[in-house]
Amino acid sequence: MKVAKFGGSSLSSAQQLVKVGNIIKHDPAIRFVVVSAPGKRHNDDYKVTDRLIDLAIAQKNGLDMEAIQADIIGRYQSMVDDLGLDQAIITSFKLTLNKYLETLKGNYPRLLDALKSCGEDFNAQLITAYFNQLGINARYISPLEIGIIVTDEPANAQLLPESYDLIREWRNQDELLVIPGFFGYSKSGNIVTFPRGGSDITGAIITRGVQADIYENFTDMSYIYSAHPKMIDNPHPIAEITYREMRELSYAGFSIFHDEALEPLYQVNIPVMIRDTNHPEIEGTKIVASRDNIKEYPVIGISSDEGFTSITLRKYLLNRELGYTSRLLQIFEDQKISIEHVPTGIDNITVVFRTRQLTRPNQLNAIIHEIEETLSPEWISVEDDLAILVIVGEGMREVTGIAHKAMTALALEDINILMINQGGSQISLFIGIKIKDQEAAIRGMYQQYFG
Amino acid sequence: MKVAKFGGSSLSSAQQLVKVGNIIKHDPAIRFVVVSAPGKRHNDDYKVTDRLIDLAIAQKNGLDMEAIQADIIGRYQSMVDDLGLDQAIITSFKLTLNKYLETLKGNYPRLLDALKSCGEDFNAQLITAYFNQLGINARYISPLEIGIIVTDEPANAQLLPESYDLIREWRNQDELLVIPGFFGYSKSGNIVTFPRGGSDITGAIITRGVQADIYENFTDMSYIYSAHPKMIDNPHPIAEITYREMRELSYAGFSIFHDEALEPLYQVNIPVMIRDTNHPEIEGTKIVASRDNIKEYPVIGISSDEGFTSITLRKYLLNRELGYTSRLLQIFEDQKISIEHVPTGIDNITVVFRTRQLTRPNQLNAIIHEIEETLSPEWISVEDDLAILVIVGEGMREVTGIAHKAMTALALEDINILMINQGGSQISLFIGIKIKDQEAAIRGMYQQYFG
Repeated sequence: MKVAKFGGSSLSSAQQLVKVGNIIKHDPAIRFVVVSAPGKRHNDDYKVTDRLIDLAIAQKNGLDMEAIQADIIGRYQSMVDDLGLDQAIITSFKLTLNKYLETLKGNYPRLLDALKSCGEDFNAQLITAYFNQLGINARYISPLEIGIIVTDEPANAQLLPESYDLIREWRNQDELLVIPGFFGYSKSGNIVTFPRGGSDITGAIITRGVQADIYENFTDMSYIYSAHPKMIDNPHPIAEITYREMRELSYAGFSIFHDEALEPLYQVNIPVMIRDTNHPEIEGTKIVASRDNIKEYPVIGISSDEGFTSITLRKYLLNRELGYTSRLLQIFEDQKISIEHVPTGIDNITVVFRTRQLTRPNQLNAIIHEIEETLSPEWISVEDDLAILVIVGEGMREVTGIAHKAMTALALEDINILMINQGGSQISLFIGIKIKDQEAAIRGMYQQYFG
Repeated sequence: MKVAKFGGSSLSSAQQLVKVGNIIKHDPAIRFVVVSAPGKRHNDDYKVTDRLIDLAIAQKNGLDMEAIQADIIGRYQSMVDDLGLDQAIITSFKLTLNKYLETLKGNYPRLLDALKSCGEDFNAQLITAYFNQLGINARYISPLEIGIIVTDEPANAQLLPESYDLIREWRNQDELLVIPGFFGYSKSGNIVTFPRGGSDITGAIITRGVQADIYENFTDMSYIYSAHPKMIDNPHPIAEITYREMRELSYAGFSIFHDEALEPLYQVNIPVMIRDTNHPEIEGTKIVASRDNIKEYPVIGISSDEGFTSITLRKYLLNRELGYTSRLLQIFEDQKISIEHVPTGIDNITVVFRTRQLTRPNQLNAIIHEIEETLSPEWISVEDDLAILVIVGEGMREVTGIAHKAMTALALEDINILMINQGGSQISLFIGIKIKDQEAAIRGMYQQYFG
């Protein structure tokens, strides 16, 4: 038994819905469908969710809402027209929008959440109508009815654990259930959206709740690749990848999934399939708890990311000062800055963090000043031109020579290494280099691991 | 103007003192001589300092002291006899020992410090007498007279900063001054020994105080070598090494100097020469603030050390938890354990520390329990079979391919890498491997860097 989730691009037009209908008709194992809001049909298109946010802002500021509402309804209208569905559904969508605009007026955070939920909610209803027209015994079910019970803070829904028991009740259902993604209901009856992960997280929650065998995640990508197609032509497609590998790669720019979305499944070891709505014949990438082809592919993927700052300090006999590392890290914690890496020498220590966390004016100066006050380093240096290469693979534990290949690539390209970090769980190797060397490094490393 | 310090093996017998006398006669630039206690003459010999400690213990426990005293005095007696010095000096040594044993009876910590100081103090007096016999205008000067003023806690002397001003007064002295190493005087007039670094630290203090151009440190080694002679036959001798390189190497088994001994000189950039009493014709290794041959020798030395424990923990989405690193390190700080390295992955973190710091029963279990309580990892693992390779060189910043050579050596030897760490100051690269792979790794790396 499977749960299938379809992303925004898979549900952006009648043409796409026809593909989805075919997939469902040909795979009776799919018993639950989780639905995103309509995505872009082409580059210049809008996402329905973005227009719903515009609508909330317009009401808050007393601006004209008519054109925005027309854009939103228009997207569903064209699908209803193209698929020949009953027009009554459009009337009901309009009524829902107006109801939220009236009842939640003056309560912007709740209005925003309610309007945002409409993108997925309307799409789930529309798709159910289309499935029924195809002769599929499908039924729309709201997150409230199926049991997605969440905390009450607007735009920051956290699933309550009892939800899984409620959802499990729907496990043996004759009808195909169609569930809108992206939101749940709080115990006070409010619609609350998830902070991140969107429909992916709903799909994972349903999968875990009904104890499905597989979670099929349909988007417009056939595979996860071993390197970013922007840097490598026709990169090697990944057949199987572990959750932990996926997480390490998604950290550095592999953004198919928001990584929190996978957490509910990681904990119960249900595999995820990456599927392509436009190419359902392709098997896709399977995300699993452990994989068998580690000897063949000790490294599963390579990646790189920018936007890091590193602060290095040096002090003779620093290593003798008990607790200097935790005193240093405390400074960053006080500034609400998450640390990525802490490479150390004997008398020096480097702290690497994502630059975007510096949000206050002069925050970097304040941090440096605090370090100087607390630790009196004799030398301190800041590097903001830093890219971090990530080599990921469960095979690092067992297969020797992995780091050697990365270093060979960098030596051949004459690239200077600013930092190296490989932790004890031996699943990833991080190498800091200058941003300008990033592409040559990835190309060289790809050649070493997959060439 | 130079300060020369002679180690215990250089001063262990009349034969050795003759060599020291020749060195002083032939180098008029040496104006200050710092003296250790007599070391071993052969493998089964005793060090005078160890017998002095035995003497303190014997008195404390009411044991017979006569044989111990005879051992101590005997060592000086044989030098006096062999060099034909005035026997009166031996009488004065006996009187001093007896004075301490009487006046400090019942005050063991002070007695211990006073007796320990005799090893160096007697030797300085004896050597002065020998120098005078050679026609050298030399004078014994006690740490009290020259101005080595220290804190008062027994066996834990810390130099008071005003000492340097007092010592500077002796800068332009006609006589060669001979100073016993290893102890100073507190303001209450007590003899207090240094906690570590012994005579080396006295030598560094005098050098800095009199603002000498060079500190010559005479032992029985001609050079610092680029790898340990126990692992590599005829390793490359180092001509110049920076203070920071020396410190990183001495961390991992290069134990010519106790690293704290160099600190007073590091701060004022006075170079240190490693000299061999048995081969004064050899120039030796020079420790400097910066060296010019970085292109030729980007790596100056390689080393390895055992006795580490690593604790690795893993938790999905750990990286999202603000401050988890400082919470983790706080646990070690609370246990008074200094951390060596903190390599990190996305969802895992490793803490590496020296195992000898685990001194209480079940301390490791207590740490693991505390980590589980504080951070709820899903997986935790302890590795106590860990050796750490250290590749050191100021050239790492400028020359590419350094890490590549280390990885090539390890790949050729099929050695699994447990951890890699290179910090932002780029002077050292740390690689964790199994202890069994240590020798093969050092041999392979030596071939890469110096072969």
